Amino acid sequence: MTRSKLEPSKLNQVSIGGVFWRKRLETNRTVTLLVQLDQCKRTGRVDAFKLDWKPGDLNPPHEFWDSDVAKWIEASAYSLATHANATLEKQIDEAIDTIALGQQPDGYLNPHFTVVEPEKKWKNLKDGHELYCAGHLMEAAVAYFDATGKRKFLDIMARYADHINSRFGTQSGKVRGYCGHPEIELALMRLARATGNPQYGKLAAYFVNERGRRPSFFDEEMERNNRKATKDLTASDQAERHDYYQAHRPIVEQKNIDGHAVRALYLVAGSIDVAAAGGDRKLLAACKRLWRSAVERRMYITGAVGSRRAGEAFSVDYDLPNETAYAETCANIALMFVAHRLLQIEPRHEYADVIERALYNGILSGVSLSGDAFRYANPLTVHAEALGPSIRPHMSAKRQEWFGCACCPPNLARVLASLGQYVYSTSADTLFVHLYAEGEVKTVIAGVDVTLVQKTDYPWQPTVDFLVDVSTPTQFSIALRIPGWCEWAKLHVNGKPVQLSRITHEGYAIIARRWSKDDRISFLLPMPIQRIETHPASRNNAGKVAIQRGPIVYCLEQVDNGQHLHNLALPAGAKLSASFAPRLLGGVVVITGQGRRLPVDGWNGDLYRPANVKKDSPVKLTAVPYCVWGNRKVGEMVVWIRSDHKSGEQFDVACKL
Amino acid sequence: MTRSKLEPSKLNQVSIGGVFWRKRLETNRTVTLLVQLDQCKRTGRVDAFKLDWKPGDLNPPHEFWDSDVAKWIEASAYSLATHANATLEKQIDEAIDTIALGQQPDGYLNPHFTVVEPEKKWKNLKDGHELYCAGHLMEAAVAYFDATGKRKFLDIMARYADHINSRFGTQSGKVRGYCGHPEIELALMRLARATGNPQYGKLAAYFVNERGRRPSFFDEEMERNNRKATKDLTASDQAERHDYYQAHRPIVEQKNIDGHAVRALYLVAGSIDVAAAGGDRKLLAACKRLWRSAVERRMYITGAVGSRRAGEAFSVDYDLPNETAYAETCANIALMFVAHRLLQIEPRHEYADVIERALYNGILSGVSLSGDAFRYANPLTVHAEALGPSIRPHMSAKRQEWFGCACCPPNLARVLASLGQYVYSTSADTLFVHLYAEGEVKTVIAGVDVTLVQKTDYPWQPTVDFLVDVSTPTQFSIALRIPGWCEWAKLHVNGKPVQLSRITHEGYAIIARRWSKDDRISFLLPMPIQRIETHPASRNNAGKVAIQRGPIVYCLEQVDNGQHLHNLALPAGAKLSASFAPRLLGGVVVITGQGRRLPVDGWNGDLYRPANVKKDSPVKLTAVPYCVWGNRKVGEMVVWIRSDHKSGEQFDVACKL
Repeated sequence: MTRSKLEPSKLNQVSIGGVFWRKRLETNRTVTLLVQLDQCKRTGRVDAFKLDWKPGDLNPPHEFWDSDVAKWIEASAYSLATHANATLEKQIDEAIDTIALGQQPDGYLNPHFTVVEPEKKWKNLKDGHELYCAGHLMEAAVAYFDATGKRKFLDIMARYADHINSRFGTQSGKVRGYCGHPEIELALMRLARATGNPQYGKLAAYFVNERGRRPSFFDEEMERNNRKATKDLTASDQAERHDYYQAHRPIVEQKNIDGHAVRALYLVAGSIDVAAAGGDRKLLAACKRLWRSAVERRMYITGAVGSRRAGEAFSVDYDLPNETAYAETCANIALMFVAHRLLQIEPRHEYADVIERALYNGILSGVSLSGDAFRYANPLTVHAEALGPSIRPHMSAKRQEWFGCACCPPNLARVLASLGQYVYSTSADTLFVHLYAEGEVKTVIAGVDVTLVQKTDYPWQPTVDFLVDVSTPTQFSIALRIPGWCEWAKLHVNGKPVQLSRITHEGYAIIARRWSKDDRISFLLPMPIQRIETHPASRNNAGKVAIQRGPIVYCLEQVDNGQHLHNLALPAGAKLSASFAPRLLGGVVVITGQGRRLPVDGWNGDLYRPANVKKDSPVKLTAVPYCVWGNRKVGEMVVWIRSDHKSGEQFDVACKL
Repeated sequence: MTRSKLEPSKLNQVSIGGVFWRKRLETNRTVTLLVQLDQCKRTGRVDAFKLDWKPGDLNPPHEFWDSDVAKWIEASAYSLATHANATLEKQIDEAIDTIALGQQPDGYLNPHFTVVEPEKKWKNLKDGHELYCAGHLMEAAVAYFDATGKRKFLDIMARYADHINSRFGTQSGKVRGYCGHPEIELALMRLARATGNPQYGKLAAYFVNERGRRPSFFDEEMERNNRKATKDLTASDQAERHDYYQAHRPIVEQKNIDGHAVRALYLVAGSIDVAAAGGDRKLLAACKRLWRSAVERRMYITGAVGSRRAGEAFSVDYDLPNETAYAETCANIALMFVAHRLLQIEPRHEYADVIERALYNGILSGVSLSGDAFRYANPLTVHAEALGPSIRPHMSAKRQEWFGCACCPPNLARVLASLGQYVYSTSADTLFVHLYAEGEVKTVIAGVDVTLVQKTDYPWQPTVDFLVDVSTPTQFSIALRIPGWCEWAKLHVNGKPVQLSRITHEGYAIIARRWSKDDRISFLLPMPIQRIETHPASRNNAGKVAIQRGPIVYCLEQVDNGQHLHNLALPAGAKLSASFAPRLLGGVVVITGQGRRLPVDGWNGDLYRPANVKKDSPVKLTAVPYCVWGNRKVGEMVVWIRSDHKSGEQFDVACKL
């Protein structure tokens, strides 16, 4: 059985607040959504759907502008689901009215290929992004339908899906093509569910299964377009190019996750949906294999993936450079999408651990605390040279207001606006708590209304208290994830200790009982300050440690620690202390300790010298959460710190809070 | 006064042999020169001068093919100067006869712009390499004239120089242009000296002084060619592009050495020649400033320069990445050219130190022990991923037989064939010994024939013995360089100790006396094994040391130390031993010691874990000279090794040999 066992909570069932999230989510609703609509409008992305661009005009609609508008609508729809907002709803309706203007009589909907390059419509699936844009518009339509019940956009996209279905597939007369950028696969699965039309699910399965077959559709397409076919490139180039488009081999045959990280992970996400809906064990096994490839050998400690700038791609195993980490915000989000899907099929803490790792670190780092500046690449080291003027916006250490290729900002907006769905899931008899955050969920278990209230200052504080409200005493289970980073969790139910080892399954503490109103759970997740090391097959962090506390990965910033961060070391025996700084960076736990610093003076023009006199001196180190780096003066930053850890030593794991 | 005080010995005055050099130089003469002529012929580089290529033919003569043929002739001429070889001389004469076919009635000589793109002749100085090729042909002509006295090639190049002189300059009717790739400046200075025509020196001075003026000649040229002018690029791009061509500002105004490393250093070399000939103190001061910029802040420990792949360029201060080091063989050679010129003006050990550092490390690494494979980039770290199939030939860890852009192989050949000129210099009353190598020099000091014989196994052994032969007892000085790496040199003359501090000036021990036949000098340069550290403003080697003994920089190779070299550490207290391995890599001193290795097993699929159990274990480290890395099975390689050096500790400096 591969069908999903769990159902994520609906957004309108969940509320989230508290010291960590309240301000972040409010900023997403009240700042981020506004600036992004403004950017979409002012750059012409919305009006492009009016189809009034003519040859000779400036600013032709770009192939994948549609996806930015779509993600903004999707994010805004999620926001409406939790926070009614007549102004925002009107703005969405207006955008949808504009989008409707772009639809052709046959259902086709893509401004670029309607007015700029009509002769290339469906002629360059490899690079054209038509199906990719269609997918994002479908996701937006489903989200808006779910939030408001309004069908207009859903119907538009169903018509477009019908058009696509009439063109692509294995049946005679159809083109056996697929998109160079996966996305439509998971979108069609959502559309199938929202419309109840199983044909969209079949089309999604077609796109998943057709991909990577030989002879290569993309090679043939390039020949038709009089371009040098990928198969005519050298062996190594060919593999890379096909990897990039996820066209190197069928997903069921893939052993490692390769190629463009966002494309690879969107495809895996869609494939999991297809596998779950169709009971395709082989496909699901492939997706889990690719998951392991990503998280066991190709993921940064921040949950970021896609370490290679060239091709925005996964690199080989254990190649995790820090300075040149690409770690695109969208890729980190895509990893979270994959984890979320696998978690619903198989509730194992490892999936939720990665959601938490990515969310609190490599995803949140993508947006400023002010909500109006965004990061595309998420490096783990910024040295002085990377602060110079010649860095391209995508790789800039400073967050940017927008990008020419603006995929990341609205992707962040939709993740934050839909955070509720990642916190809880339900099965027939169990309410799962995957993430810890102040708030509550209202749901139905075993036919009974259940409300579960979380009281916590997580991730700053280790205690999470739950209050159960159930209309009538009912037998069901509450499953609490024990994070992978946590070694000594403690559980009390109604004040009585519960032995976790007896009730833990796949990293979830499953509390099965007859729950009554006002039942209380107290969950303690001790958060010692941890020094983390990397698998030694990776050359990038040899001799170094990262500081982590709970799910939060820390970094050193120049603004706190001066320049030349590479000269700082954290001795193995150094005591580290955690304390909450309410006025710093929106309120964060800061970690301080005594490290060592090598001075840069006394060299008299030498560049090299015998290492026989070392004069490092004690220095206070101040580490802040990686997710908020670069919100003050942008400067050097490092996650991995040199350590002179020696054999068998133990550290202090002090945690003062 | 800026005129050169010193005159390098002529090649036919010097012989070099011994354990280190004999085989290397013999291989250069008997293998390298042959394979390079073969490559030049088989790729069409020689026959291109016949001008029989026609539009539609394959393999059109490339803009800078000429320079490869030129450098081969130059190298071969140096070889003839020390080792007569009728076959080689005939091959050179044939090549010169072919070159002569390419010369136009007006003196012009460039196959590409004669038959492939005649309409672009002198129209794209920025990228066309015409003057660059002319310069290399001039150097070759001078070298062949010096070696043989034959004037044919020299006359050809004088005619071409006259043609160039008629076209370029500040006089009305001339074009105020200069070449995108400096080289002709230093070549014209050599041609002026060989022909006795001062006009060529004036033209060289023009090219040096015109460069970098505003408005930019290259901007105007691009506008004439309907290309976007560099000045219309963004501010940061503009600086980079002008840097690349050494056209960003006049050399006298430059503070740091920037841009394409070979172009920058060839220009500095030519500028030193111009400054010395013309007594231009301001220009010489600028060259010395740029020298300091290079060696004090932008040079690898191997004497390699140009750390940035993009633009084959110098990076900012202290940016010395090891994995991605470009460190082009030609750039390292160019640094030696600059050092050699400054040394003749001002005999200071720092110049000869860099000649030695570059020669024994980052230059020699460019050619295989077999003499038929070459390196373009010279990285200081090769990790497993860099061994994959997709690395471009220029950056390959494996030496290559040839390159499309083949500047490095014949550059190596000419340096090795002309090694003698770097070993000794003379002034009116002093014989300078800059480098230590078995062999001898015959010269004239104070009007008297002097022969100085060196007996040494340097750089493997620390003792250098000299035997003086002089026709009649004569008062003059012998100046011996005390290498910068050497702290406790000891000197005996005719068995009597000499107090070095009393006779040392600028790092040279100046032994002034009335020298007689059979006088003996014994010079001891103790060679402890040194652990070297890098200036802490560089982030690249923080916490790491390199092993150096005498002038030789060491590395660890996978073939000796297993894979995952990044997991090896060299504890501060570890004893290191040196021993000569006569059958290894042509006979080298190997350094061994006990280090620590972190195991890669026991991770159970984790990529990150708390660093609380460290189980590194003792392991024997084997280091070999960097200059011979990659001559066995090509694999991982590191120069910089993690060290857990602690405050104030001293190391063992054992040296067993």
